[in-house]
Amino acid sequence: MWRTMIGEVRRRIGEELTLAGWVARKRDLGRIIFLLLRDASGVIQVTVKREDNPEVWETASSLGREDVIKVRGHAELSEVSHAGIEFIPREIEVLNRSASPLPFDPTGKVKAELDTRLDYRFFDFRTPRTSSIFKIQTQILRAFREFLLDRGFIEIQPPCIISSASEGGAELFKVPYFEKEAYLAQSPQLYKQMCAISFEKVFTVVPVWRAEKFNRPTHLNEIRQMDVEVAFASDEDVMRLLEEVLVYILEEVRERCRGELEVLGRKYEIPSLPLRRVTYTEAVELLHERGEEMEWGEDFSKPQERLLSSLVEEEAFFIKDWPTVQKPFYVMPHEENPEICHAFDLLYEGLEISSGTQRIHLPELLRRQILAKGLNPKDFEYYINCFAYGAPPHAGWSIGLERLTMTITGMKNIRECCMFPRDRNRLIP
Amino acid sequence: MWRTMIGEVRRRIGEELTLAGWVARKRDLGRIIFLLLRDASGVIQVTVKREDNPEVWETASSLGREDVIKVRGHAELSEVSHAGIEFIPREIEVLNRSASPLPFDPTGKVKAELDTRLDYRFFDFRTPRTSSIFKIQTQILRAFREFLLDRGFIEIQPPCIISSASEGGAELFKVPYFEKEAYLAQSPQLYKQMCAISFEKVFTVVPVWRAEKFNRPTHLNEIRQMDVEVAFASDEDVMRLLEEVLVYILEEVRERCRGELEVLGRKYEIPSLPLRRVTYTEAVELLHERGEEMEWGEDFSKPQERLLSSLVEEEAFFIKDWPTVQKPFYVMPHEENPEICHAFDLLYEGLEISSGTQRIHLPELLRRQILAKGLNPKDFEYYINCFAYGAPPHAGWSIGLERLTMTITGMKNIRECCMFPRDRNRLIP
Repeated sequence: MWRTMIGEVRRRIGEELTLAGWVARKRDLGRIIFLLLRDASGVIQVTVKREDNPEVWETASSLGREDVIKVRGHAELSEVSHAGIEFIPREIEVLNRSASPLPFDPTGKVKAELDTRLDYRFFDFRTPRTSSIFKIQTQILRAFREFLLDRGFIEIQPPCIISSASEGGAELFKVPYFEKEAYLAQSPQLYKQMCAISFEKVFTVVPVWRAEKFNRPTHLNEIRQMDVEVAFASDEDVMRLLEEVLVYILEEVRERCRGELEVLGRKYEIPSLPLRRVTYTEAVELLHERGEEMEWGEDFSKPQERLLSSLVEEEAFFIKDWPTVQKPFYVMPHEENPEICHAFDLLYEGLEISSGTQRIHLPELLRRQILAKGLNPKDFEYYINCFAYGAPPHAGWSIGLERLTMTITGMKNIRECCMFPRDRNRLIP
Repeated sequence: MWRTMIGEVRRRIGEELTLAGWVARKRDLGRIIFLLLRDASGVIQVTVKREDNPEVWETASSLGREDVIKVRGHAELSEVSHAGIEFIPREIEVLNRSASPLPFDPTGKVKAELDTRLDYRFFDFRTPRTSSIFKIQTQILRAFREFLLDRGFIEIQPPCIISSASEGGAELFKVPYFEKEAYLAQSPQLYKQMCAISFEKVFTVVPVWRAEKFNRPTHLNEIRQMDVEVAFASDEDVMRLLEEVLVYILEEVRERCRGELEVLGRKYEIPSLPLRRVTYTEAVELLHERGEEMEWGEDFSKPQERLLSSLVEEEAFFIKDWPTVQKPFYVMPHEENPEICHAFDLLYEGLEISSGTQRIHLPELLRRQILAKGLNPKDFEYYINCFAYGAPPHAGWSIGLERLTMTITGMKNIRECCMFPRDRNRLIP
């Protein structure tokens, strides 16, 4: 490339260099102008003296905040400049001017409303806070894939347009597909099963959609799921995999995103393994002891999840052995007690960030469970038939990318952790 | 995990092991049964003697192809068995029975029709040919992301549901979105630009949709794009990046997927860099010399692309400096001759696998080009405004994942390279 990144300048004092970036600040002292030049790697002070070069001086005088410039010159050590170096320009070229006033303060010192920031998301990406969140998200994804690829997992590409609901329950977005009616997938569930029963170990990061109408701080209508499915595995096998993946991600982010976590004022402990396993029944008892009213078989409310987290006194823990009535038809019931099933949730800092199950791999049992849920096996013939030609036992889980990003970055609104959030009201940008 | 992969058995001769997998073949010789057991890592011969253990013998007798079993026992060196080892079972447990007849031959020796294979895709994944294609695709994606992450790129997540067409031209799928009308994105174009003008270097792998009605061997309605966008970069800068990424992917696949390439009977050379750059005008002249009839300004037909590849005599090469009329409004025209623009295609083995451009970062020029295309700048106010607050020059490109997989694996139909293809007629599975 034709330019040197600002982060590298310190190692190239005295050399003729070309920098490029944004004018983050300008201070005009009459005979001297200090420009703060910013690029993705850092900031540097550019010192322009009127007497040195009238042409450069004139250009520098005309600059405003967020103007994009190219600067040729050299760096010198400086005792005055706060970073210990300054850049002496021989030439400044304006690549693009910025309009003024700016939509909001890109340094983040003057706080802007979330809605304004989302409206001008392209500009918000420049603020240290927002850019830190997505640098962390990049490392979350990198660590997730790396961990699984190192263990021989195959990356799969489930389709997004599907012909019918895979799970039922949540509402689907319709997509007229030529002469047919189709839907946006709410989960890659069936597809990852179809892959795992042949490839054995598979993963994907894939967008999914739920047409739910409510607007909550933890809810979006388009999210990305990090999914895993493993053959010849039980729920306990994939719980071990999940806790290892979580710890690996937490370690990698802490190692590689020190600066970003500091910008966000975020510190976290790495949970030690194995994580505690609390059965659903134990969890209900814990809540009953604290006077919470709930029946065995009901799901926990969000406040109950948080209370439970404080009662269990662990940053991260599993709730396992859920009531079969709470879970979809494809979840493997316990052999000795079919009222409970091989399902688990992972709670991290009071938020459910993942859930998973062992699936039913036996066509006959699947048919019985579909009937028991009051559904018609005829509607699931294709699905059932997938397990007819030698399907091994298999299990898997799913992590919501934006939710995991929320807990790792300490954000309170999921919209902070999605580049271009989609909710009932927001479809732009 | 409770089982040992078959690929590891050779290092653990004599130890008590548990294997699990599919019955790939059974030969019953009366007093001895040879089972071929297959898992994701390989195959092994399981030798069952009637005299050794009647119970194991009985289970073994009952087995059919693709039954899923768990086998406890130990491995012995054997001069008779073709791989030099055999497994002596102490216990066989059936995990799932397979229905019979099978949808088609999972060894791939008896060829099945593509449509049948796609109908039973979950089963087709077991054939050596299909499983090799997707193991290679996994490495293509790994290499692509690794190359970019090592160079400081940020992974971005463009939205899939959008409020309006980003490029126009190709048809869009409509998605009724609560009270509004929305569409499935045909390209992450605007979004990667919005990210690059702040993050500088970004990439994504993202599904995109085009509602085109024709059915061609190189065409699908849902594909995955591997996209890159770089700030402070020209078309030539990102062409260099593209050729380096391509060579890195080709090298990594050749290194890591020797066995898979062998299964597919596929060999390829790694092109040497820099790739040849042919201008659009030179390409037209080459075709004219061969008597092809076409006007300057027209696009090349698929046969012309293939002819051009044979005339240029390079496995991979760029066609650059396209006519401005051929490209979207956002492409930067040449300053000295606005009839041509900063756009390029990458042809590899006669197929266009990537195209890219330098974009217009100047709001006023963008407005003029929109008008010149006969479009209304009012419809693009949001887009134009993104470049109003200090947008650096930027450029990018896009590779179709399925197309790249096609060329690397040597497949002739893109449906082979998409796990669950979507075309006008196919929506299942």
